[in-house]
Amino acid sequence: MKQSSIPIHTRKEAPTDEQSKNARLLLRNGFLNKHASGVYEFLPLGLRSLNKIINIIREEMNMLGAQEVLLSALQNPEIWKKTSRWSGDTDEVWFKTSLNSPQVASEDTRKKEKKTGGSELGLGFTHEEPITSLMATHISSYQHLPCSLYQFQTKFRNEARAKSGIMRTREFIMKDLYSFAKNKEEHNVFYEKVASAYMRIFERIGFKDRVYRTYASGGLFSEFSDEFQVVCDAGEDVIYISDKKNIALNKEVYTDAVIKKLGIDVSDLREAKATEVGNIFTLGTRFSEALECFYTNEQGERVPVFMGSYGIGPARILGTLIELYASDSNMCFPESVSPYTVHIIELEGGKEVAQSLYELLINQKVDVLYDDRSVRAGEKFADADIIGIPHRMIVSTKSINEGGIEYTDRITEETQNLSPQDAVAKAREVIQYVK
Amino acid sequence: MKQSSIPIHTRKEAPTDEQSKNARLLLRNGFLNKHASGVYEFLPLGLRSLNKIINIIREEMNMLGAQEVLLSALQNPEIWKKTSRWSGDTDEVWFKTSLNSPQVASEDTRKKEKKTGGSELGLGFTHEEPITSLMATHISSYQHLPCSLYQFQTKFRNEARAKSGIMRTREFIMKDLYSFAKNKEEHNVFYEKVASAYMRIFERIGFKDRVYRTYASGGLFSEFSDEFQVVCDAGEDVIYISDKKNIALNKEVYTDAVIKKLGIDVSDLREAKATEVGNIFTLGTRFSEALECFYTNEQGERVPVFMGSYGIGPARILGTLIELYASDSNMCFPESVSPYTVHIIELEGGKEVAQSLYELLINQKVDVLYDDRSVRAGEKFADADIIGIPHRMIVSTKSINEGGIEYTDRITEETQNLSPQDAVAKAREVIQYVK
Repeated sequence: MKQSSIPIHTRKEAPTDEQSKNARLLLRNGFLNKHASGVYEFLPLGLRSLNKIINIIREEMNMLGAQEVLLSALQNPEIWKKTSRWSGDTDEVWFKTSLNSPQVASEDTRKKEKKTGGSELGLGFTHEEPITSLMATHISSYQHLPCSLYQFQTKFRNEARAKSGIMRTREFIMKDLYSFAKNKEEHNVFYEKVASAYMRIFERIGFKDRVYRTYASGGLFSEFSDEFQVVCDAGEDVIYISDKKNIALNKEVYTDAVIKKLGIDVSDLREAKATEVGNIFTLGTRFSEALECFYTNEQGERVPVFMGSYGIGPARILGTLIELYASDSNMCFPESVSPYTVHIIELEGGKEVAQSLYELLINQKVDVLYDDRSVRAGEKFADADIIGIPHRMIVSTKSINEGGIEYTDRITEETQNLSPQDAVAKAREVIQYVK
Repeated sequence: MKQSSIPIHTRKEAPTDEQSKNARLLLRNGFLNKHASGVYEFLPLGLRSLNKIINIIREEMNMLGAQEVLLSALQNPEIWKKTSRWSGDTDEVWFKTSLNSPQVASEDTRKKEKKTGGSELGLGFTHEEPITSLMATHISSYQHLPCSLYQFQTKFRNEARAKSGIMRTREFIMKDLYSFAKNKEEHNVFYEKVASAYMRIFERIGFKDRVYRTYASGGLFSEFSDEFQVVCDAGEDVIYISDKKNIALNKEVYTDAVIKKLGIDVSDLREAKATEVGNIFTLGTRFSEALECFYTNEQGERVPVFMGSYGIGPARILGTLIELYASDSNMCFPESVSPYTVHIIELEGGKEVAQSLYELLINQKVDVLYDDRSVRAGEKFADADIIGIPHRMIVSTKSINEGGIEYTDRITEETQNLSPQDAVAKAREVIQYVK
């Protein structure tokens, strides 16, 4: 992509009302725009990174044999009343539609008739109720189990104080996976497979050895849930890590009884701030009983399906990457989630070589951003530093005199001069490594 | 994909409350589930078709040089008040959030504090206001123009009577493209390019020669807009077609004055029912003036940007394909948007050959659905008929005795017996043709 064709520009300063590092950088580098408190828009570069994160997650969900669906944001109150989650009395964070919304009749009568109202609907903040209600009509026999379905779908949560940039927003895409099993034993097998898939996802995304599977409160559903916590100074959570056992506990379950139960020695635990990037829950039969998702087992008895739910927020992952790897004026994305893999920066005297390098890379299917803009070199470098593409190829009179292209691997910080052919070979090597 | 691993089943009967052919079939073949009136969920097969439609549109948008973004559903009332579209007095179909929605504070105080309310927000039914507001901060000079941005984003419209299945729903993904130009002349050039891209999209999707670019009311924005109408018995619109001039008029602009203006002879017009699958609008400066999206021209004057907007609803396209090509018990999708390209049906005695054919096709990257289920042959055929995959390969004792595989091209209705090698060659030929 030629940078001159992206009509979004970087900003010199972050907005003064943004406290979090992630939002400050993502607003400066043109990945996001802030529409309202806790509501962000994804611009071309930000959407590319988001979609790369989504595609890594999708590949791992498909490997689990889960089927992709797309449920609705608008929620019918009736099914939520059955699980007592419509009222908003417990942990629910509903947005509900106003009965004063103007309502319009179908095409024929649109001009003659105008109504207001209609029934109140919710905007889904999670989707256990609709997926259970759906599967109640498809699962009837033990032969239909186990099975699992997932989606990338927009959730709405009426957060009063959205203060952590894109870590906690009022509207966000969530990957939510739901599993249906005959019993707890069958459920546990799938649950552990998901936990492994999550660790692979976080490794592929570039969190390296910073991720800990962490015991956390099971909420209304079971004793524990598992969170996936990334150790990070800006984290909202406090966890206690046992390096010996390679497990961690969220502060919320850090009690003598739990520590004893897990067989950990308190002196082996170290405290760390961390950010949750995923969580998995054993739901049991709470939803299947309330919504009549039953099956007939091999003995001919009708019993409730045993469920689990598994969430990841792709935008939260993007925010966590910024918190980990950025300063206020510099970012370097892991290759797997960078908006582009290679950034060509054309400086004075470099146009012809830069243009031909760009075409060679496009032909090799390398994701490449080409800064062909007529702006000062200093502005190009400042922009490239915050956009965060890990492989940089500078083409200038100087680089051409020294061999052709000045290539920098921003991850290792090594720089070398390469001929155009070697630069293409280097880029091919990089993309092979990413896939 | 093995059919046994998709946990969604077909239905023998359509729900009695669905009048439209598209919803009846899409609920029977397991593409959709109905969540509430005018609210549908996309299940695995339906989502695959929807995504194929989306990807065709995306490719054509990228060819125009438009950049993909993802704006928010939640809408800040302030910008909509500036264009007088917040009140809902004209054509707006707002859902707005209720002030009684429970609101939850950030993590720390979540358990201590509970609030209700917050400010009222809208759920976007279109996105002229936020995109103009965004671009007002990025466009400042004539050097930034022309440019265009698009998205696939979920719209919400509070339709009182959603009666046409997925043709008119209260929540749906829309491709909306917005263009920004220096003046009307520059706008017109892009507008015509989009019109050509739309015709290519509809051709690739399989509407063949049924699509007419149709003069329609320009609404609040200009004298005319252009609709893309598919001639279809179930259509909600009436259009008048001039075969001589290869243009059409929507009934809403069918007046003597307009007919004269377009230089058409009334006797050349034939009436037809049609369904709108896309529309394009010249917006002029209505939004840029209200939201201060100005640029400095080559003469140093600050002038408003000249805009256009361009919509397509992918689910409406899916519904139109059903209306055109389905009966109550049979459907055949165009290859480009079928959930899978090839459907292997394994019958008695065919397991081993079917399994190895499946693996060969997967290796050749053919999109293949493999009916490996232990159900009666009649059930498999009835399901395959309504799922609508255009290329069918039956493997049974009979087919093996006659050469290997009974292959049917359901578009031409030709059947032949092929060796497994020839069946693979046939499938490769088909997918090359699709791309």
